[in-house]
Amino acid sequence: MAMEFCAPAPENAQVLTAAAVAELVGGRVSGDSGVTVGRVNSLAAAAEGEATFFTGGGPASTSNAADLAELENSRASLILAADAVPTPAPATVRVANPALAAALLAQHFDLARPRWCGIHELSNVHASARIGDGVSLHARVHVDADCVIGAGCVLHPGVVLYPGTRLGPGCTIHANSVLGADGFGYIWSGERHEKVPQQGWVEIGAGVEIGAQVAIDRGTFAATRVGAGCIIDNQVQIGHNCELGRLVVLCAQVGLAGSTVIGDGAVLGGRAATTGHLRIGSGAQMAGNAVATKDIADGMVVGGYPAWDLRMEKRMIARIRRLARAGA
Amino acid sequence: MAMEFCAPAPENAQVLTAAAVAELVGGRVSGDSGVTVGRVNSLAAAAEGEATFFTGGGPASTSNAADLAELENSRASLILAADAVPTPAPATVRVANPALAAALLAQHFDLARPRWCGIHELSNVHASARIGDGVSLHARVHVDADCVIGAGCVLHPGVVLYPGTRLGPGCTIHANSVLGADGFGYIWSGERHEKVPQQGWVEIGAGVEIGAQVAIDRGTFAATRVGAGCIIDNQVQIGHNCELGRLVVLCAQVGLAGSTVIGDGAVLGGRAATTGHLRIGSGAQMAGNAVATKDIADGMVVGGYPAWDLRMEKRMIARIRRLARAGA
Amino acid sequence: MAMEFCAPAPENAQVLTAAAVAELVGGRVSGDSGVTVGRVNSLAAAAEGEATFFTGGGPASTSNAADLAELENSRASLILAADAVPTPAPATVRVANPALAAALLAQHFDLARPRWCGIHELSNVHASARIGDGVSLHARVHVDADCVIGAGCVLHPGVVLYPGTRLGPGCTIHANSVLGADGFGYIWSGERHEKVPQQGWVEIGAGVEIGAQVAIDRGTFAATRVGAGCIIDNQVQIGHNCELGRLVVLCAQVGLAGSTVIGDGAVLGGRAATTGHLRIGSGAQMAGNAVATKDIADGMVVGGYPAWDLRMEKRMIARIRRLARAGA
Repeated sequence: MAMEFCAPAPENAQVLTAAAVAELVGGRVSGDSGVTVGRVNSLAAAAEGEATFFTGGGPASTSNAADLAELENSRASLILAADAVPTPAPATVRVANPALAAALLAQHFDLARPRWCGIHELSNVHASARIGDGVSLHARVHVDADCVIGAGCVLHPGVVLYPGTRLGPGCTIHANSVLGADGFGYIWSGERHEKVPQQGWVEIGAGVEIGAQVAIDRGTFAATRVGAGCIIDNQVQIGHNCELGRLVVLCAQVGLAGSTVIGDGAVLGGRAATTGHLRIGSGAQMAGNAVATKDIADGMVVGGYPAWDLRMEKRMIARIRRLARAGA
Repeated sequence: MAMEFCAPAPENAQVLTAAAVAELVGGRVSGDSGVTVGRVNSLAAAAEGEATFFTGGGPASTSNAADLAELENSRASLILAADAVPTPAPATVRVANPALAAALLAQHFDLARPRWCGIHELSNVHASARIGDGVSLHARVHVDADCVIGAGCVLHPGVVLYPGTRLGPGCTIHANSVLGADGFGYIWSGERHEKVPQQGWVEIGAGVEIGAQVAIDRGTFAATRVGAGCIIDNQVQIGHNCELGRLVVLCAQVGLAGSTVIGDGAVLGGRAATTGHLRIGSGAQMAGNAVATKDIADGMVVGGYPAWDLRMEKRMIARIRRLARAGA
Repeated sequence: MAMEFCAPAPENAQVLTAAAVAELVGGRVSGDSGVTVGRVNSLAAAAEGEATFFTGGGPASTSNAADLAELENSRASLILAADAVPTPAPATVRVANPALAAALLAQHFDLARPRWCGIHELSNVHASARIGDGVSLHARVHVDADCVIGAGCVLHPGVVLYPGTRLGPGCTIHANSVLGADGFGYIWSGERHEKVPQQGWVEIGAGVEIGAQVAIDRGTFAATRVGAGCIIDNQVQIGHNCELGRLVVLCAQVGLAGSTVIGDGAVLGGRAATTGHLRIGSGAQMAGNAVATKDIADGMVVGGYPAWDLRMEKRMIARIRRLARAGA
């Protein structure tokens, strides 16, 4: 079946001069400000006509020798780098945070990438759903009754929104994710698991990005909530009644049991988990595989199961491994 | 695309008197038996015209102060509660198990919720499949050759049934789950991984509820079986040749390696796992993240990896954490 | 909707004589070489007209009594077994590796199984995609712009290939897997998570088999690569920029963080993981749940988190469990 593409990007999305790059990312050119680039690439692979970036300090810094050698041998036309770093490129754009500058520059060029948009004929959208302007629903997206999709959202193939799901503007949801399936609520009757009907919904804030194969269950009575600006990697599971603040980071395969509350800006490493009915504080960080079984205070950095101070977890592991090494 | 809804619920699904609630849940009214309610809601959120429930004991019990304060301030018209608990509601229905009563009451009101049913035009069903009465196949459900779907099953969008899958009556399968994909069977030839063709199928008992993004592989030679009344949360993986008894509970992200046998009523916490070719006994309980590497006896409660007595696991963790705390 | 089936298998796929079996698997018949079989089945279930296999040694070996009893009672017409093993079957085919021989024999009979092939009318394929000969795209497969699908690939229902995905010949991908979604790349700006556009693609070698609900993210600048002959079980997550060599084995629920490099023939047990930007050596083995946080040398066998020598991990666990058992 044919797929159409969105309107072309603005003309200057294709190629920028070093001067224009500096303006875009808030930096300053050293070298030839007329050099042009049309793509960001990795330090090792960037060729003429491409930009790259170097995140370390110069030769006197802690940057390792391999990285410095890659920098010296770079064939990029433009390098984003900190002030003190010598580069071999015709143009260097000096910035405080080269990785951030590279992201912004790549976002600019990305506008020129052809992409599909519109509402695909193989998607199905309930008549009662409200769809904002500029929304892209790819093939086989399912939007059920009473859903609300904010302007500019992009839903990739196979995404399923159960009835009543609400997405703020500018969200992206990758393929085969499911929002609003029933939470896992049952009461044992003595004979069977009686289902607790899940009457709630899922509510996603503005600008949230959700990976592939993520499951976010509807609330029991009200909403399961994900705050604005959160980023959620693939295969994450979010149980019913969870409430995530703004800008929370959930790495791949994280599992949140029901009624987990997460404060703004908390970061959960890969496959971290919670046992539910607890709060992860704002700015808290959970190491990969950590399992929180009770509240984690704001700003704490935890690891292990049950999750506790990450330094203590590391010290503990060092000590018990010493036990194993001692004697036969 | 248009979606239709099932026939409306029976009229009395909308609103019940306290007397009717008591009859439905097997309780007894104290207060005004003529009070009417049309919805169950949480203790904190329930408003006039709504029912709620309180699972604790009264002021002299171990119920915590916050819960008792919520109870005192409840605006619900009807509260399901145990005998000795004073409530502020116009009507209280006395029951032994308020959470169970609330589930049954919510199930009653849930009948009135409009829901889609039938066989969606965007589903695809092989001509050889046998579909029972009252089945709902949502958009993009795939039912392959020789499948059998029992009466009253509900398959949500994107569910895939490979050839030969058999569902008992009254099952629910949430979006994007996959039943009957090939098991992971290969033999190393010295040069490559030779595939062991997976000739079997998947067989699901009556009244099983399966979450979103669950994978249940077909058996190698015969069936992978899930017994009647099991409940399976999101993102669970069940390898080939597993056999689950009745009423088993698998929480989210559980992983069962091939040829795991699970007895009736066992409960596996979130992300618990088995290494395959072993038996989890009837009524056994595995804590979250526990990994069984050999048989677990009936009724045992285990944790850790390899799974062993949960009390021992907890004692061990306490002791090794003490090691880390001691000295610098 | 109707589904068609491929052309029937060669006639001799249905039934083989013991002599033909011996020729196919490189063995030698003892007993009646004219006996015919039409299916491989398990030792316990195989009936007359069926073949089975016994992987252990004879009565004087370490084979356990239960297995030997199954062998003695087998009703199979043909048993694949090692030289010294007495069998009750009319025909025994002697081979060095009975399990491998059984796989090859079952592959032969499997050719006779009716299966759907072609490009399903409910799949959607971008006009710019290149599709090899003999490819089967089941219902609701999504093939986006500039994808390349090698000859003989089979994509099961709901598979999503993002733009630019390349599959070598002879790959199988099970239902609802997603190849090429955006990697999880963001830079914190001080105010928000700025997305790093993911410009790369996914490249899969020849003969790779991928389970259900697997996610393989596109590279940031170039390819995420999976080498020829790899086998990947259900619900595996492979982050952006990973590079897997040939014949790698990833068991269910494995999670690879970005830029993991894996050497040829490495085996990762169920739910093993890596923290990214590291190398798992050729032939290395990671036990289930192991988490590699730095390079693992070729051929090493590791367990635990952080992953280290598996024997040390086991010794450590034995010792800390002894601590828990000691005293009250």
